[in-house]
Amino acid sequence: MQQRISLITLGVDDIETMSRFYTEVFGWMPLRQSTDQIKFFQLNGVKLALFDRDALAEDADIPAEGSGFRSFSLAYNLGSKEQVDVCFEELISRGARIVKQPEMVYWGGYRGYIADPEGNLWELAWNPYLNDD
Amino acid sequence: MQQRISLITLGVDDIETMSRFYTEVFGWMPLRQSTDQIKFFQLNGVKLALFDRDALAEDADIPAEGSGFRSFSLAYNLGSKEQVDVCFEELISRGARIVKQPEMVYWGGYRGYIADPEGNLWELAWNPYLNDD
Repeated sequence: MQQRISLITLGVDDIETMSRFYTEVFGWMPLRQSTDQIKFFQLNGVKLALFDRDALAEDADIPAEGSGFRSFSLAYNLGSKEQVDVCFEELISRGARIVKQPEMVYWGGYRGYIADPEGNLWELAWNPYLNDD
Repeated sequence: MQQRISLITLGVDDIETMSRFYTEVFGWMPLRQSTDQIKFFQLNGVKLALFDRDALAEDADIPAEGSGFRSFSLAYNLGSKEQVDVCFEELISRGARIVKQPEMVYWGGYRGYIADPEGNLWELAWNPYLNDD
């Protein structure tokens, strides 16, 4: 198994609202393969998909019930603390919800968190120890 | 904001067991920046991280409680149905848990699901409509 991933799929309750968030707040362009049922965004290598959460659970034949913390976060790394601040402010000004204001962290980095309309966590971070590709 | 993602972090209960799964079952090599507290795997552009789920929630200042479906899946796409079968069998033989046997899907693809030791879903898929990079 190669060290790669093709797709991250977020199970969503309201695909229209979520799709609008990723296109208008993040400013991302959906792939032409997107439909009303599924939205794809081509990222760096990996794709992000938005798909109905009940349908996603059904696809895997598992119960759709779930609540609280989803035990994952997505991160968008930037080249400096200043870039984190600028990106954070820009996303907030476009309607992203603040989860945590950027601040220095004990391990030597700098990060803040925003959430998409359904609470998926995005960390905006400067990490001097982890090269971004 | 560029169309990219730096890191997917899975909040885990048992980092040793989870780390062993990704290194021994998936056969992935952790980055040298990994510690006992956090494991990083360099994938295609994006990195996967394993980090204590309580610590992850605390980092974002959100409640750590959560149960049931986590509303996301990760996918590993392959070039053919046969490759899906081979990869699926290989992972199962190394101890991955079967969630759903591979089968044709209504949209024209072929996919199965396995889970890591803490229930995170991995779809193994052949999707003739979505090019993999």
